Amino acid sequence: MRDSGTHSQDPPGEQVMKKIKGAPLRFPAAGGNGAIAAEKPAATSHVMALDRALVRRLLHTLDNPPINVILWNGEEQTGSQSAPVARVWIRDRKAFFKVLTRPDLHFGDLYSAGRIAVEGSLVQLMEIINRASRNSAHIGIIKKYLAHPLNRSRASAQGSSRDNIHHHYDLSNNFYKLWLDKEMQYTCAYFPDPDMTLEAAQLAKMDHVCRKVQLKPGDTVVEAGCGWGGLARHMARHFGVKVKAYNISHEQIVYARERANTEGLADRIEYIEDDYRNITGKYDAFVSVGMLEHVGLAHYGELGEVIHRSLTDVGRGLIHTIGRNRPGFMNAWTERRIFPGAHPPSLREMMDIFEPREFSVLDVENLRPHYAKTLEHWLERYEQHVDQVSSMFDQDFVRAWRLYLSASIAAFTTGSLQLFQITFARPLDTSVPWTRAHLYTDRG
Amino acid sequence: MRDSGTHSQDPPGEQVMKKIKGAPLRFPAAGGNGAIAAEKPAATSHVMALDRALVRRLLHTLDNPPINVILWNGEEQTGSQSAPVARVWIRDRKAFFKVLTRPDLHFGDLYSAGRIAVEGSLVQLMEIINRASRNSAHIGIIKKYLAHPLNRSRASAQGSSRDNIHHHYDLSNNFYKLWLDKEMQYTCAYFPDPDMTLEAAQLAKMDHVCRKVQLKPGDTVVEAGCGWGGLARHMARHFGVKVKAYNISHEQIVYARERANTEGLADRIEYIEDDYRNITGKYDAFVSVGMLEHVGLAHYGELGEVIHRSLTDVGRGLIHTIGRNRPGFMNAWTERRIFPGAHPPSLREMMDIFEPREFSVLDVENLRPHYAKTLEHWLERYEQHVDQVSSMFDQDFVRAWRLYLSASIAAFTTGSLQLFQITFARPLDTSVPWTRAHLYTDRG
Repeated sequence: MRDSGTHSQDPPGEQVMKKIKGAPLRFPAAGGNGAIAAEKPAATSHVMALDRALVRRLLHTLDNPPINVILWNGEEQTGSQSAPVARVWIRDRKAFFKVLTRPDLHFGDLYSAGRIAVEGSLVQLMEIINRASRNSAHIGIIKKYLAHPLNRSRASAQGSSRDNIHHHYDLSNNFYKLWLDKEMQYTCAYFPDPDMTLEAAQLAKMDHVCRKVQLKPGDTVVEAGCGWGGLARHMARHFGVKVKAYNISHEQIVYARERANTEGLADRIEYIEDDYRNITGKYDAFVSVGMLEHVGLAHYGELGEVIHRSLTDVGRGLIHTIGRNRPGFMNAWTERRIFPGAHPPSLREMMDIFEPREFSVLDVENLRPHYAKTLEHWLERYEQHVDQVSSMFDQDFVRAWRLYLSASIAAFTTGSLQLFQITFARPLDTSVPWTRAHLYTDRG
Repeated sequence: MRDSGTHSQDPPGEQVMKKIKGAPLRFPAAGGNGAIAAEKPAATSHVMALDRALVRRLLHTLDNPPINVILWNGEEQTGSQSAPVARVWIRDRKAFFKVLTRPDLHFGDLYSAGRIAVEGSLVQLMEIINRASRNSAHIGIIKKYLAHPLNRSRASAQGSSRDNIHHHYDLSNNFYKLWLDKEMQYTCAYFPDPDMTLEAAQLAKMDHVCRKVQLKPGDTVVEAGCGWGGLARHMARHFGVKVKAYNISHEQIVYARERANTEGLADRIEYIEDDYRNITGKYDAFVSVGMLEHVGLAHYGELGEVIHRSLTDVGRGLIHTIGRNRPGFMNAWTERRIFPGAHPPSLREMMDIFEPREFSVLDVENLRPHYAKTLEHWLERYEQHVDQVSSMFDQDFVRAWRLYLSASIAAFTTGSLQLFQITFARPLDTSVPWTRAHLYTDRG
């Protein structure tokens, strides 16, 4: 699966951003750089000594990895003596210079446009780039970039959160069905056994969450950001609780309601198409799986207030989110093209939710390897259904999502991203479990 | 055990701070307030209407709890209709006014001096005070107090960390032996079964720590702040590792070396009387149990650097510390009389150790109920040996430590304090365990 995608046969530089059929590829307006993919590549030109020198410099910066670079005239340079894990085709000089100036943004667009192609393992290529960028001298420059006020503002630009959510989650339920599990869990699964199926691991994830907040029959639960409603169904079906589940994605809520009706769970689940900030009522448990990435740092205190007013005195809560070892931003391309407005927080940043209201953090579990594994399953299924994806979207989209899934695997395997599950309770709650052993006992 | 101590028979107001025999009671110099205990109480005076009104006001502020207050003329006021869990004797008017003005500091000193006495459950009395101070209108004042710049400076005043450690830990090994377990663990135990003995729970704690950092035979471990060396002995004996264990308490290091020699472990453990900042070498694991409380916020980054330079690329680390739900300070009396310089951090504050060097936090476990249970065992043993304590120290000391242990139980049962175990690794380390199930399987 790591060797998915041999794309050197793609005719490069001829794909433009256009809708083929089905849902359009809704890349948001993106200023000057937004037009990169549609830009007409320069006519194939000679390779100059400078080009070769820059390739050598680039490979050196990446610690001479097992990667070959093939320039627009077919000339190939090897990164190391080992057999290459990936051959990177650069189709024109303009693409080459763009990727050198702002790789975090332009690589994704040029790859999506077919002006850069990768033969071999895209995942391993991304891992090599991640590791090198962590270790190299460039890290100083990257840090400066991250500290730039314009970037600081990125994570808190939440005026358009509905647009952002719509951009990603309303793409098409049929698209996500192609590669997600049956319960449509678009969040990290939990693999007690690494060899279990994705379906089993998503059920195990939902059980893990329910056990962490100690659900018992008759409890009431509020869920903030419920996706296609799978966790709410799981809780209602297997734990005998009543759930109110909030989500601002229209297509997801419609899907969730239909399934609850079909599966006879409609009397126990209310799916509400609204923002988590409009949650009302008191509940025995608050859960939020994969929403915090879209909340925005500036709103963490507000989220804490929502939890504070929603939980009973012995209520338990869980937040499951992509995170980071230290404050930083989502890869620029992913944030611009795939997840507008997304921000993976560090634990320090997350404490803005809990500390003002003195919630007791009971348990933090980092499931990073589980997200890499989950994404490997998704990428494998995606490639298995790539013909169907191609019948729904244009090739730029097909490549963009291949890159996004591959780069995400690399981000988790190399520790650029983490996956935190945080369980919490009121400070005076003495009903918290004595140990965590109950999470690891098989149910009868 | 909760009803330990009926002290109404103590002749009040006649105890002064003096050494009886054994180690002196080394209360640090403490400015104007430091002299409170030795101060001569006012001659017994009449109880006035104002005094009665203030008692009623005090009981009202505490939500009219099942506590009776007995004034210096024997007059008793009841807090509620229920049978009292504690009767509080206030022996003179000066004591009464002092405790009203600055209860967090003066109650402890006046109790130690015998000018306030408690009949019934000191623990339940402290729990009531903790809960009320969390809920009452006073919380605004308390917050202001905590935000005061003079208080902010408390936690970082580390110039005298050797003096601080000496003050507490060099009291007398024989004193601690009276009420600690056989391995002299003066940190939170771990009770997989709440009914297990303290000895078993301290062994379980040490196992828990060793499993969390995945010790295997042949590993090298560095321990920062090793106490009397019990964890180092446990690791060397049961996990086949080599340990370098640092501590600046002379008496503890001498004790630890003697035991390692006696128990044939001297070839596997090196006890070093030095500061953690002087740790040298590379290790497979870094552990620190109960030292962070004394490190001081200003030094967290430095501690992170020490860990960074001490761990191999696949090294794992664990820090075990008393903490808080949000930034705040140790109770003023405890910090002044018992643990000078101590500061229990919030998780947000702790991230100053991990985030600058991008350590991956893998696991945070909050063992708060286990510390309450541990302290209950300590208090029970302390009371069982109170005659021996009395033969070593004066009655002020005996009462001060009774209060300290009782108030600490209350701090954990009411959530004023937490106990965090944080496990971490390098960001690129892929050898981290797949799940935490290995912590919950019985060893053969």
